[in-house]
Amino acid sequence: MSEKPLASQRVFTGRLLKVRVDEVALEDGRCTTREIVEHPGAVAIVAVHGEGDDAQVVLVRQFRKAVEQFLLEIPAGTLEPGEEPLACAQRELLEETGLSAQRWSHLQTFYTAPGFCTEKMWLYLAQDLRSHPQHPETDEQIEVGFYSRSQVRELLQTHQIQDAKTLVGIFWWLYTL
Amino acid sequence: MSEKPLASQRVFTGRLLKVRVDEVALEDGRCTTREIVEHPGAVAIVAVHGEGDDAQVVLVRQFRKAVEQFLLEIPAGTLEPGEEPLACAQRELLEETGLSAQRWSHLQTFYTAPGFCTEKMWLYLAQDLRSHPQHPETDEQIEVGFYSRSQVRELLQTHQIQDAKTLVGIFWWLYTL
Repeated sequence: MSEKPLASQRVFTGRLLKVRVDEVALEDGRCTTREIVEHPGAVAIVAVHGEGDDAQVVLVRQFRKAVEQFLLEIPAGTLEPGEEPLACAQRELLEETGLSAQRWSHLQTFYTAPGFCTEKMWLYLAQDLRSHPQHPETDEQIEVGFYSRSQVRELLQTHQIQDAKTLVGIFWWLYTL
Repeated sequence: MSEKPLASQRVFTGRLLKVRVDEVALEDGRCTTREIVEHPGAVAIVAVHGEGDDAQVVLVRQFRKAVEQFLLEIPAGTLEPGEEPLACAQRELLEETGLSAQRWSHLQTFYTAPGFCTEKMWLYLAQDLRSHPQHPETDEQIEVGFYSRSQVRELLQTHQIQDAKTLVGIFWWLYTL
């Protein structure tokens, strides 16, 4: 029950995104179109300071133009051409928070919006954090905070976490780690 | 630290998606562009059959052209113009699975990819399921299954769930409900 490609048209080529419209034939012979956003892929980081009951997770608050509001998110960023996901995660954590980590492990890889977008996201756990002078990205203005498990539960219960990757990362941290 | 809009250009208008490029001024005076995918919004449903240890969640398997693979997901779909999220969830659950539910509650609303996309997703819990003759959407070919908590944990641990909204929904069901 996959889809047979019939035609594909590039409709937009941007700095970050590309968009194409594919015409496909379904198993039963019907045809339809798929509007597909091509994204280079991304990483997100559950960065944990301390251990056990004293552990705190790093969240960043930043304005998101697409949704016209400030969101509280785990650190994240987009893969540069040819960049390995782990190297990207290390770079983004430093750029967004001024932190590096001694211990890294891969938690999960998932698609953020597979109905229409190619974006694949690698989620990492970063531990044994060290603070460095901050090197912000050129077009990001970010506020960094550390949150305990009880603070994160409170944020969840009061629906203050409105970003899918952050919900996934927070659930991993609270319930499976 | 929000962003002041300077200019906006529509670059694509499709059947489902629109794309625009915004030029914005940051707090510190620097300028940058934001490529933004406009999406009508969507719903996703944690549909649970039975109670307690015997409970099973509904997952659907379908081919996702954007990522060129079959994914196991919770039922979901896109808002029609003017449609209320709950009405959309009820419609999509019936169309994708042939099920209706007597009890509905809202779990969470989140953005799937707020770095570049407007898509807002309403996540519902649907209980007291009833089976109806299936009415598939015109361009979807979907396989429906029921999974116990232990089967879902196994799917999580073996990284067979690769979709962000499904991870969020599954975590809600396994750990908070």
